[in-house]
Amino acid sequence: MNRATELFTELDRGNGTPLRAQLEHSVCDAIAGGGLRPGDRLPASRLLAEAAGVSRGVVSEAYAQLAAEGWIEIRRGRAPVVRAEAVAAPLPRRGRAEAAGPSSPARPRLDLTATAPDLARFPRRAWMAGTRRALAAMPDAALDYADPRGDEELRTVLAAYLVRVCGVAAAPERVVVTGGYTQGLWLACRALARRGARRVAVEDPSLDDSRATIRSAGLELVGVPVDGDGARIDPRLDADAFLVTPAHQFPTGALLSPERRRALLAWAAEGDRHVLEDDYDSEYAYDSPPVRTLQRLAPERVIYLGTASKTLAPALRMGWMAAPAELVEPIAAERWAVDSGGPAIAARAFAAMLAAGEVDRHIRRTRREYHLRRDRLVAALRERLPDCRVEGQSGGLHLLLRLPPGADEDAAVAALEQRRIRIRGLAGYRLAALEEAGAAGSPAGDGPALVVGYGRLPLASIDAVADALRDAIGAAG
Amino acid sequence: MNRATELFTELDRGNGTPLRAQLEHSVCDAIAGGGLRPGDRLPASRLLAEAAGVSRGVVSEAYAQLAAEGWIEIRRGRAPVVRAEAVAAPLPRRGRAEAAGPSSPARPRLDLTATAPDLARFPRRAWMAGTRRALAAMPDAALDYADPRGDEELRTVLAAYLVRVCGVAAAPERVVVTGGYTQGLWLACRALARRGARRVAVEDPSLDDSRATIRSAGLELVGVPVDGDGARIDPRLDADAFLVTPAHQFPTGALLSPERRRALLAWAAEGDRHVLEDDYDSEYAYDSPPVRTLQRLAPERVIYLGTASKTLAPALRMGWMAAPAELVEPIAAERWAVDSGGPAIAARAFAAMLAAGEVDRHIRRTRREYHLRRDRLVAALRERLPDCRVEGQSGGLHLLLRLPPGADEDAAVAALEQRRIRIRGLAGYRLAALEEAGAAGSPAGDGPALVVGYGRLPLASIDAVADALRDAIGAAG
Repeated sequence: MNRATELFTELDRGNGTPLRAQLEHSVCDAIAGGGLRPGDRLPASRLLAEAAGVSRGVVSEAYAQLAAEGWIEIRRGRAPVVRAEAVAAPLPRRGRAEAAGPSSPARPRLDLTATAPDLARFPRRAWMAGTRRALAAMPDAALDYADPRGDEELRTVLAAYLVRVCGVAAAPERVVVTGGYTQGLWLACRALARRGARRVAVEDPSLDDSRATIRSAGLELVGVPVDGDGARIDPRLDADAFLVTPAHQFPTGALLSPERRRALLAWAAEGDRHVLEDDYDSEYAYDSPPVRTLQRLAPERVIYLGTASKTLAPALRMGWMAAPAELVEPIAAERWAVDSGGPAIAARAFAAMLAAGEVDRHIRRTRREYHLRRDRLVAALRERLPDCRVEGQSGGLHLLLRLPPGADEDAAVAALEQRRIRIRGLAGYRLAALEEAGAAGSPAGDGPALVVGYGRLPLASIDAVADALRDAIGAAG
Repeated sequence: MNRATELFTELDRGNGTPLRAQLEHSVCDAIAGGGLRPGDRLPASRLLAEAAGVSRGVVSEAYAQLAAEGWIEIRRGRAPVVRAEAVAAPLPRRGRAEAAGPSSPARPRLDLTATAPDLARFPRRAWMAGTRRALAAMPDAALDYADPRGDEELRTVLAAYLVRVCGVAAAPERVVVTGGYTQGLWLACRALARRGARRVAVEDPSLDDSRATIRSAGLELVGVPVDGDGARIDPRLDADAFLVTPAHQFPTGALLSPERRRALLAWAAEGDRHVLEDDYDSEYAYDSPPVRTLQRLAPERVIYLGTASKTLAPALRMGWMAAPAELVEPIAAERWAVDSGGPAIAARAFAAMLAAGEVDRHIRRTRREYHLRRDRLVAALRERLPDCRVEGQSGGLHLLLRLPPGADEDAAVAALEQRRIRIRGLAGYRLAALEEAGAAGSPAGDGPALVVGYGRLPLASIDAVADALRDAIGAAG
């Protein structure tokens, strides 16, 4: 047994904290306290499991979590190593809802940016099995250039998934597989631009990355304020399309109200306009069944956009849309011109996972976990931050924490960053933050708030995070 | 032993034709002669191998080839079935250098369209092993959104590959991984357009699909005639960039002469212009080592574009570029906006294959095979078609067959299509075929010609193909 092993073999089976979480804490404490230094090796999971009297799986999961949080580095066939902050891998230079600002000093210990799923739970074995099945069954001809709408087998099982899980009115011939949500949005915007569209309305606040995508497709933006019922629909709105997140407004978490839904679809129908429905996280609905999609109500007006980034992993770059009949071919033509279509082996692997029920199973499993985290986080925030208000927590992987009036959102973000907790404030998602002054209307429900993602927040860290939030907001108040 | 087995168990070990080829012929003959009808099952490879006294691998390879040619359908765990023409899967609606025209009546028996590799040789096992290694070694963080230039591990081994195999001056920080050649071209054009570029010169004739890609990126086209020394470089050419295929002009097969190379780079340097070097098939050079890339001579002027579509399979959608330093960041920014970057597991799988030497090994193996096909095809064409001229055969997966003056290229293509041999004439690659009259100069070396791809032409079929070409050209003369 090496020295590192001794550091954390005293597990307490009686205190109610899961052994995995205790292991994680022990390692974190050892690193934070200087008992383990950058570059130090941790014991192999087998050795530690023996020493600690737990199953090897418990140790592996703890290590995976620690790696996800940036404490340690796992390499195949070698012992895990304590990460050296100084030589930590640089962050992705950009990331959907991920950038903590240009001044991020080091890799965060905890990542509370929104819409990030728990990557330690990515079902590697199922993906491998799907790949194996796909390669065994694919005829050679399926390795050629193919239909830019995407693999036919995948479109077939995906249509069934969309009907079953997401409440979409989908038929395989309306489904287009894309390289993620971003590409789906881009292609849809290009196809609309070719038909004469010029302006796309976006919610304010909303995902900032989408704006660059819309502009890249040659369209202009117009901001529409959001309140507790979602985007405020003005029947006189001068735009050709409307990008909305009706199930769980990003980032406020609001559910688009029935009245607003009707108003939005009426606006679209009246002016021969389109709705772009970004359904990024409706697989995770905790308090009630997911709301019916807009697409189901008006499949010829609504371009539905979905993604595997929140359920499986962003790195799959797997997304899809269900498009009005007349737009499918134009979208496919755009895709052919820009990249000649998507990869086939991954498409078939994903299709095999869907067909085998592995995707549904994974979503059920992770939904339970995220639900638990959501409950604990909300309870911890209410207990420790009575002056703040929790909103938008009904589903997905994030909620909105409204700070007391006058609190300094940026200062709170900076204070958390000092503790290596990465988080974003609401302000960064507002159009005014990026647009020229005057281009956007003033959003309702203004005021300081933090967007708290819990996709990567282990249960064991929730209380500590709530404490850190309290301290940061207190200092910034 | 079932009836089908009896049809082709009389192999002749003494006649010099490989057993695999004999098996293929037997099945083709049985189908063509009516002995096997659509829907009929073929014997399982194990049974046929026993009956014919050959190894099971020989039968499996023969079946794979027959499936690639469209005679039979292979499904995992079931016996192969003779394909019913009437219910044959539709062709991909579009394909790089692949569309035989809108009137294609049925799936072709033989596909002679250019630049298509032999998909039956795709190294499925190596891809699977690469995926396994990648998934075992990837830290969770690698499943997140990532660098839009592509996976760092892949860029590192890819840079080494480009130096070693392709003669590129590449460093990992100059390499950008793309979703295939098409996306690389599109991204490069967009980045150039943002710097003020308006016009891209393309070779005439050239790959027609690239023109839609360039236009999609917002640039105009100007055609430059091609002769036996490649594109004719005019120092007064009014364009901001030049897309060339210097190693093996597509589709004429010409090698860009040293004088033209110098002239092209001088033109670029003088006007602060760029060269887009499409190096689609230089891995397959048969008669001499591959020529040095333009990129190596002027890495700050030339955007080098490569692809795995010709060596491995188009369905991987794996391409790369080596870009001038000042363009890497703009290209990455374009990519982030349009699709948030590429998939990571496939990137790491490909990196693992490269690192293990599997890609080099696959290229060596297939190079031997294609070299043999090239030799046999050239010999067969020269023997049977003395009035035609073979050109551009020094490398790659296709050559140009110049028809006698006055021969009707379209009629020859149609006659071959009647025999279910898919091929394209030279005319379809000319700019004049697609552009408004007068936009392009008149290409030199005009006259009827067929572009003969042999990537999917089995050795066993070469004589029959030469016969079919002779008949078709004779009838069309």
